[in-house]
Amino acid sequence: MVRVSIVGATGYTGVELIRWLIRHPRVKLACLTTRREKPPALDDLLPALPKGHGLRLTRFEYKAVRDASDVVFLALPHTEGGRLAERFLRDRLLVIDLSADFRLKDARLYRAWYGVPHPSPKLLARAAYGLPELYRSEIRAANLISNPGCYATSVILALAPLLERNLIDREFVVADCKSGASGAGRTLRESTHFCRLDENFEPYKVNQHQHMPEIEQALSDVSGARFAITFVPHLLPVDRGILATVYARRRRGARRQDIDAAFREAYEGEPFVRLRASRPPSLKDVQNTNYCDLSVVQREGRDEIVVMAALDNLVKGASGQAVQNMNIRCGFPEEEALR
Amino acid sequence: MVRVSIVGATGYTGVELIRWLIRHPRVKLACLTTRREKPPALDDLLPALPKGHGLRLTRFEYKAVRDASDVVFLALPHTEGGRLAERFLRDRLLVIDLSADFRLKDARLYRAWYGVPHPSPKLLARAAYGLPELYRSEIRAANLISNPGCYATSVILALAPLLERNLIDREFVVADCKSGASGAGRTLRESTHFCRLDENFEPYKVNQHQHMPEIEQALSDVSGARFAITFVPHLLPVDRGILATVYARRRRGARRQDIDAAFREAYEGEPFVRLRASRPPSLKDVQNTNYCDLSVVQREGRDEIVVMAALDNLVKGASGQAVQNMNIRCGFPEEEALR
Amino acid sequence: MVRVSIVGATGYTGVELIRWLIRHPRVKLACLTTRREKPPALDDLLPALPKGHGLRLTRFEYKAVRDASDVVFLALPHTEGGRLAERFLRDRLLVIDLSADFRLKDARLYRAWYGVPHPSPKLLARAAYGLPELYRSEIRAANLISNPGCYATSVILALAPLLERNLIDREFVVADCKSGASGAGRTLRESTHFCRLDENFEPYKVNQHQHMPEIEQALSDVSGARFAITFVPHLLPVDRGILATVYARRRRGARRQDIDAAFREAYEGEPFVRLRASRPPSLKDVQNTNYCDLSVVQREGRDEIVVMAALDNLVKGASGQAVQNMNIRCGFPEEEALR
Amino acid sequence: MVRVSIVGATGYTGVELIRWLIRHPRVKLACLTTRREKPPALDDLLPALPKGHGLRLTRFEYKAVRDASDVVFLALPHTEGGRLAERFLRDRLLVIDLSADFRLKDARLYRAWYGVPHPSPKLLARAAYGLPELYRSEIRAANLISNPGCYATSVILALAPLLERNLIDREFVVADCKSGASGAGRTLRESTHFCRLDENFEPYKVNQHQHMPEIEQALSDVSGARFAITFVPHLLPVDRGILATVYARRRRGARRQDIDAAFREAYEGEPFVRLRASRPPSLKDVQNTNYCDLSVVQREGRDEIVVMAALDNLVKGASGQAVQNMNIRCGFPEEEALR
Repeated sequence: MVRVSIVGATGYTGVELIRWLIRHPRVKLACLTTRREKPPALDDLLPALPKGHGLRLTRFEYKAVRDASDVVFLALPHTEGGRLAERFLRDRLLVIDLSADFRLKDARLYRAWYGVPHPSPKLLARAAYGLPELYRSEIRAANLISNPGCYATSVILALAPLLERNLIDREFVVADCKSGASGAGRTLRESTHFCRLDENFEPYKVNQHQHMPEIEQALSDVSGARFAITFVPHLLPVDRGILATVYARRRRGARRQDIDAAFREAYEGEPFVRLRASRPPSLKDVQNTNYCDLSVVQREGRDEIVVMAALDNLVKGASGQAVQNMNIRCGFPEEEALR
Repeated sequence: MVRVSIVGATGYTGVELIRWLIRHPRVKLACLTTRREKPPALDDLLPALPKGHGLRLTRFEYKAVRDASDVVFLALPHTEGGRLAERFLRDRLLVIDLSADFRLKDARLYRAWYGVPHPSPKLLARAAYGLPELYRSEIRAANLISNPGCYATSVILALAPLLERNLIDREFVVADCKSGASGAGRTLRESTHFCRLDENFEPYKVNQHQHMPEIEQALSDVSGARFAITFVPHLLPVDRGILATVYARRRRGARRQDIDAAFREAYEGEPFVRLRASRPPSLKDVQNTNYCDLSVVQREGRDEIVVMAALDNLVKGASGQAVQNMNIRCGFPEEEALR
Repeated sequence: MVRVSIVGATGYTGVELIRWLIRHPRVKLACLTTRREKPPALDDLLPALPKGHGLRLTRFEYKAVRDASDVVFLALPHTEGGRLAERFLRDRLLVIDLSADFRLKDARLYRAWYGVPHPSPKLLARAAYGLPELYRSEIRAANLISNPGCYATSVILALAPLLERNLIDREFVVADCKSGASGAGRTLRESTHFCRLDENFEPYKVNQHQHMPEIEQALSDVSGARFAITFVPHLLPVDRGILATVYARRRRGARRQDIDAAFREAYEGEPFVRLRASRPPSLKDVQNTNYCDLSVVQREGRDEIVVMAALDNLVKGASGQAVQNMNIRCGFPEEEALR
Repeated sequence: MVRVSIVGATGYTGVELIRWLIRHPRVKLACLTTRREKPPALDDLLPALPKGHGLRLTRFEYKAVRDASDVVFLALPHTEGGRLAERFLRDRLLVIDLSADFRLKDARLYRAWYGVPHPSPKLLARAAYGLPELYRSEIRAANLISNPGCYATSVILALAPLLERNLIDREFVVADCKSGASGAGRTLRESTHFCRLDENFEPYKVNQHQHMPEIEQALSDVSGARFAITFVPHLLPVDRGILATVYARRRRGARRQDIDAAFREAYEGEPFVRLRASRPPSLKDVQNTNYCDLSVVQREGRDEIVVMAALDNLVKGASGQAVQNMNIRCGFPEEEALR
């Protein structure tokens, strides 16, 4: 039994953490904190909670959280997570950070993409990148786990098997990504006003999204050479889900069957990646699950490869993956509470 | 040819006014003003405008609008329309006000429902209530026309024929109304955040909506006796449209055929009310039109009456009706630019 | 441990039964059958199932189901459930029927509303109406449980406390109901074509819906006198959820506080009814749960009562309630697998 | 004044033709025909029609249409349009075909992609491909105009300026396209059942969509060399609109400014193509208009080019473009009735 707290429990990823952790047999929920002056009723944020659940939101106080917890999930805006992580680590808690603060290993890159200095650059080297399919052993050993971005998770899982095995041209790889509105968070914005998004669809931050360097870093690392991607995110008129359609060309010498074999080898044993053969992935297939569904199509007589990946941005793209990371780090069964 | 300005041209009803007036053969658009520091590009608000339309938004200046206009539409938040109306009237412009300021005839009622003192109570007596089907002759003679609320238009049109002819019990009449999100305006709110409204449906302001006294006032006036209604609005996950389902009981002595005759008599000659016999009204039937569709169902062997009314909250419920009022007042064909 | 089969496992309510029963610790899923020539892959219908779940759909064969099961859920179109129920009962299985066949106690009423003779009228007297909040003791003793309609569940729960205690005028009670599209089932229809329903909202079957006599029967039974209702269903552009807005008048002599007390007394101990005080119910609050949320508003100084009820039409309105009925009948904790 | 008939007036593109043609000052609508046994009321299909419009649907009879018309629009399934076109051409009507029958110039390709022999292969050489931006002079001279596919229009307009001027690598060009549900037509399908598509998003016909050879043919023709594309369509949970995101690499020697200049030169004078500089195109910007909006983004320091194109699949992607073609062929102002 571990005692778990969530700092930033009222945002979408915070609420989603509660939803999954509440059924975890080895977890005791300790503090669920918010920065809001008046913590709202938890039932208003998570109305599916059973009658008489006994949980409540409280205002954040460092000591209270520290004393009550073995594990702390930070579900905060960037820079805030980074600052707190340092204190909790010093006090020997396991920290799983869902913000962007520890994803990029290079503090200058962080500054360039997030527009602010990094809040605790000396921790960067200690953070494990919490994508279990690629970094399970690092996660097992880390006290600071940096949970990946939602787009990043989908694109990295779609390309890693191909780049690791050097099966595609690295020069021109495209990730056309589509996300539901919850990816933009609970903050009110014009782009997620119902009258704007309903019946609409549009690209945004073309080649300027902050998940781009994160994708490039992980795939460079995995393939042992600098890799760049063309990345265009789009906003879908749905609540949850990401679908990434990724395009690449088979390298001279690589055969069709090598491509299929690469995905089988990489993911056959993975509990949360499913290779879909009969039909392409869809949002409906993965919503409210921790799965990332993948399928690959190669055009007859040509060398283009299309890899499609779907996941729920709040689950495998955020809070579900964070619980998976906790399970790995704490030695629990990896699928505990996630099936 | 009249010169027409719109004060508050960037809100939903302001933009909708431009959309309809731009094709009006007897209108020259003069000033389209906004209170925003930096007026946005009109194409961003109304992208359907043809290439090279030549219109642009400007910051509001009283003199500029006054000198350039014969008619001014005020599409402003309540209290702001009221204050401006007074000045424009003194300068002999025709004022069509889309705010709530001149809808309630009683300044105390205004204060009770809107929480502020009325901005220009002495004008109340001069304002015509701009519902042409009931007040066409008043509109023809007025220099200040108060455009009705969207819910109010639907419910009043559904009940007026029955109350005028004394065909229903006045004691217990129910209006269950459902509106799309554009009724709540462009301002960002939690209730119209995409992730909240998408896949949702909920009542709000149960018996507390500010259109309730407006409905009660008009129907009391029409029927010559104090009338009260039970009114529950609900928020639909759609952009545009209102559907009102109204319930009443036939009075002792009133016959089934009297009900049908009442609607035929009231609306047969009306250009913008359609009685639908073959199927109930739906939002799809009226979106982007100035029609209010009505149908009536009476249960076999019993005395309950169901009247269903549908309209587009931004057209017949706001800007289309405002143009209809201008047409009437200026002696133009009533349907000009509205078909 | 009971062995449970689902006959008609590919429709929306059948799939929903699998979804809830798979996590039931006292249930072993036996046969999941379909009438389709080629049973589809279960993962295509219920993609959230975990990798390697081992379940599959089979074609229906009476003997196979009978021999493998203690409990059988019938999720079939009307008349088909009725015929099968008779055989399974004879073979001493517990039958929970989700069709409309055993809801109306009067075979003539069935014929009038469903347009066909009743398939097994002599069973009607033996069927318990599976609304636990009203008929828990009958359910506990029955071998044939007739699961209520989705609209009926919402309206009966909203009115029963008031009618049982004789607190409202029985003459004119209105239920204005709104349902998501899954209530119409998986069959392709024009009304649920995406391009028709998206951005739309419309009433249908005004005073002609087959849940109307079901509501009237239960509420007559509960209140000991013939009761009639005005019932208008509407189709919402959402997948799941029903919201019923119910209107009545307080009887002379009944006080405001009596109304509130009635709901408290009726539902305080109920595991799946929640009285919401702070805000009206919404679809979001109940989707994917077995809760029915209720709230009551009385207008200051008048005698109208508005009761709002929300539930998920596939859960409390169908399959969740069916599992609840099984739990009651089998002596399991009533909330097992449903929280 | 030309007399115009629509054969197949009840499908989505047929109804859309009526909507635009009814306001065309040089068009007299003659026959609006359907193959249905009982033609539905036109108001049920197009409820925005004004009261007393006087139009009605009739069953198709060849002679009646021929004698009443100068121009005939064929809005029929493939093979049916092809057969009728031959007869109408012989009788000297101008034929604008919205089916796929005359899009591919090679009857063998037609057979390969549509699975049936071409209905009238000898007409193929006479048909002009009705994309005005590329084939205006051919359209001006043709008696048979083949209206392009919706996806094809968006992708061809996005790429033609680059391929004509030889500015991009032809080896690996990607078109990731997203369409609303009306593109799939009025026929009931599982993929457009509301409960399937709502909150969903999925790819389909990956590299197997029949618009792929149409795109390849037009772009090969324009660039003077065989061209192949990677084309993945996706289904959006919206009614109308296509957004194409197209990816290519600048050829060695081509400069950034050449790319921008290519689009300016190609489209500056075009009435229905808009180059958007300030923000990417969106569905909302083009719905219910005949515009195709384009914008181009080039990543700093790299050679990838992203071209985004948005249009309304039923307007510029079908019926609006058909009217534009008629205007060109008949010598009317090209924008008549389309602004």
